[in-house]
Amino acid sequence: MSNSEGAEGPAPGNRGAAPCCPPLTERPLTAEEAERTAAMFKALGDPVRLRLFSLVASHEGGEACVCDISDVGVSQPTVSHHLKKLREAGLLTSERRGTWVYYRVAPSVVAAMSAMLAPRS
Amino acid sequence: MSNSEGAEGPAPGNRGAAPCCPPLTERPLTAEEAERTAAMFKALGDPVRLRLFSLVASHEGGEACVCDISDVGVSQPTVSHHLKKLREAGLLTSERRGTWVYYRVAPSVVAAMSAMLAPRS
Repeated sequence: MSNSEGAEGPAPGNRGAAPCCPPLTERPLTAEEAERTAAMFKALGDPVRLRLFSLVASHEGGEACVCDISDVGVSQPTVSHHLKKLREAGLLTSERRGTWVYYRVAPSVVAAMSAMLAPRS
Repeated sequence: MSNSEGAEGPAPGNRGAAPCCPPLTERPLTAEEAERTAAMFKALGDPVRLRLFSLVASHEGGEACVCDISDVGVSQPTVSHHLKKLREAGLLTSERRGTWVYYRVAPSVVAAMSAMLAPRS
C-alpha cells in the first residue's frame, strides 16, 4: 500500500458526463443527448445534494471533504453517499489524500450545463 | 364564457419559482434556497421532460403546444403531463388559445438557473 494513491480518476458511471449539447434554445435534443444530460440535472434535483454541491463549490480552495461538512442535518455516511452520486453524474471529481476523499467541481461539465440553459443570444 | 381567456398565469405550485440564488460557487445555499431550487433542476432531470423542454425552447416563435410535438415516443397525454410539470416548476409559462395550451420558456427562471451554474468569475 502506498500513501501516494493520487487521483481516483473518473467514476465508473460517468463516462457519459462530458459536456455534450448545444443551448436548449438552439435545437431539440436527441433522445440520447437528453438521456445523458438529464442525469446531470437530476443529480442537482435533490435539496440535500444541491446544498452539498454548493458547499463544495464555494469552499475555500474550491474543494471539500466530508470532514469539512457538518451542518446540513444529515449523517456523514449520507453526505458521502450524495457526494458519490454527484461524482458519478460527472459534476464533481475526487481525490483521496490520506484518510479523506476531497471533492471539487468538474468545471467543464458544470459550465456546459450553464451554457445549455443560457438565454438565446 | 369568453373566448379571450388570455394568460393562465402562474401555476398554483410555482410561487417559489422566482430566481432566488447566487452562483453556487459564491456561498453555500441555505436549506430553504436548496429546497426551492432543487425542484427546478429536478424538472429537467427526466430525459423525456428535458427533451420536451428543448423542443419548446427551440421551437419557432419560442412557443409550442402539444399539437406541435409528435416524435418523442410518448403519448400526447404524457406530453401534456410533462409540460404541466415543467410549468409547475416555473420553467415554462402557458397560455390557452382556443383548443390548445401554448407553452414558452420562462426566460428569467432559466437564466437564473444558468447563472447559478456559471463558473467563478
